[in-house]
Amino acid sequence: MSEPSMIGVDWGTSRLRAALLGADGAVLAEHAADAGIMTVRDGGFAARLQAAVAALGAPAGLPVVLSGMITSRQGWQELPYLPCPADARALAGVIRRLEAPGLGPLHFITGLSCTGPDGIPDVMRGEETQIIGQDDPARGEAVVLPGTHSKWVVVEGGRIVRFRTYLTGELFAVLEAHSILGRLMTAGPADDAAFARGVRVALDSPGLLGRLFSARALPLLGDLEAQAVRDYLSGLLIGTEIAEARHAEAPASVLVIGSDTLARRYAQALDLAKLQHRQGYPDAAFRGQWLVARAAEIVR
Amino acid sequence: MSEPSMIGVDWGTSRLRAALLGADGAVLAEHAADAGIMTVRDGGFAARLQAAVAALGAPAGLPVVLSGMITSRQGWQELPYLPCPADARALAGVIRRLEAPGLGPLHFITGLSCTGPDGIPDVMRGEETQIIGQDDPARGEAVVLPGTHSKWVVVEGGRIVRFRTYLTGELFAVLEAHSILGRLMTAGPADDAAFARGVRVALDSPGLLGRLFSARALPLLGDLEAQAVRDYLSGLLIGTEIAEARHAEAPASVLVIGSDTLARRYAQALDLAKLQHRQGYPDAAFRGQWLVARAAEIVR
Repeated sequence: MSEPSMIGVDWGTSRLRAALLGADGAVLAEHAADAGIMTVRDGGFAARLQAAVAALGAPAGLPVVLSGMITSRQGWQELPYLPCPADARALAGVIRRLEAPGLGPLHFITGLSCTGPDGIPDVMRGEETQIIGQDDPARGEAVVLPGTHSKWVVVEGGRIVRFRTYLTGELFAVLEAHSILGRLMTAGPADDAAFARGVRVALDSPGLLGRLFSARALPLLGDLEAQAVRDYLSGLLIGTEIAEARHAEAPASVLVIGSDTLARRYAQALDLAKLQHRQGYPDAAFRGQWLVARAAEIVR
Repeated sequence: MSEPSMIGVDWGTSRLRAALLGADGAVLAEHAADAGIMTVRDGGFAARLQAAVAALGAPAGLPVVLSGMITSRQGWQELPYLPCPADARALAGVIRRLEAPGLGPLHFITGLSCTGPDGIPDVMRGEETQIIGQDDPARGEAVVLPGTHSKWVVVEGGRIVRFRTYLTGELFAVLEAHSILGRLMTAGPADDAAFARGVRVALDSPGLLGRLFSARALPLLGDLEAQAVRDYLSGLLIGTEIAEARHAEAPASVLVIGSDTLARRYAQALDLAKLQHRQGYPDAAFRGQWLVARAAEIVR
């Protein structure tokens, strides 16, 4: 087992994840808790971090490298977005250092901003370390991080060149919970055929706003079972994301980074779109932090 | 004042609107209440209707013509959708007649279904009488009913040929109330410039799912005031509706039917899209019911 070199903390809106990393960047110990920044009140960040460091059983005084929503306005240290293109070295160059009692030196990695070819700006906080932690994608391969706010990212020569956020996961959640489309949904087993049907509708006829209501019209007309509506809507949204991103970026292939269930769904949809794809490391944020820390000579 | 000939009732999800109509279809008296079908429990429809008829001061025994969500599964008389193309005569042919104590004969007008050129089905209940109550649109003129579930309708020779529902209004409401996009909104006066900016983004670069997040990125980057976010998002959605509908139907011009505030917003967006438009009768449901009733020889 290699010598501990640093502590990585991926501190998001709802989750805190911490890891003790070895001299080679390998994860030696991990800790995760529902202790996202929205759960921490009145400057309680240092105390919460001390608890996470203690849970890792880390030696005293190790440098702590933090990224994610912890650098947002609601976080501990608000940092301006770094404009793309940016690589590990550029992120290292704008690290904010902070001392906190009872903890080793803290190093905050900020998020990225970019402007699309259409002039529309975008932002990320946290995903940049996941992307930097991947092996370099192939030429023309888009990096996709599915989720609440899906990101499609163009990476060239280790640099994040540009990206776009798709509101896919959050839109699904609010439509299911709060819209008329959710009213006709009933629980049921995962329905791959209904999911595929939604994906095909999205791929065959682009235009999301005029397709969403089909998740109501189809069951009303007896053409879709109530327990299939949920997966149909999921397919409609993920299929739309792929159709829009393909139109915007024309990627030759796709590297999918995400949890197993969601990654499986994206794989199914990408197959239907006839887009080549493979899976990346689902959890490379700590490796990305370690690479940035090395570029900043926090670790050697 | 012409002789009363019938009572029209436009009974929707949240509102009940009733009118006493003359022999020529003119409105002699009106009554409206927040007494939509979702507020009526345990077969209380007859009693609620009697109250509306009493409020109109209508003579006893007049025929009552009903349309809207009152013919849905949650309504009084569930009626199957009539497939398009359909005109007043076709709707008249499938009227369901019912007797109810203390009321004249009841005549229920059902809603319409259609299948788009892309095979996607759609449905409406209530809008069909509003459309039939308009003067005939010009050649190539799309009829647009903005709202929670916006409809773009193709009418030819008095027949509703096909239509598509856009979830514009409902999507705006759920995103404002329940999504991360609503969190950066603060109240402010109507901001036509922010609305126009959202419309332009939607018209210039189609693809809604990858544009929604701009309503978060722009204010985070200091490029949009918090009190302008709401109108920007509204413009983004209405602009997307127009872009998608134009792509789907390529209308030569547009007839907008709706309330003044919303109709004004659509007019502004249609100007930006360089689509000719004019306003229809904002409230033609009773006239439409009267035309269907005449085709059914309920009135003469």
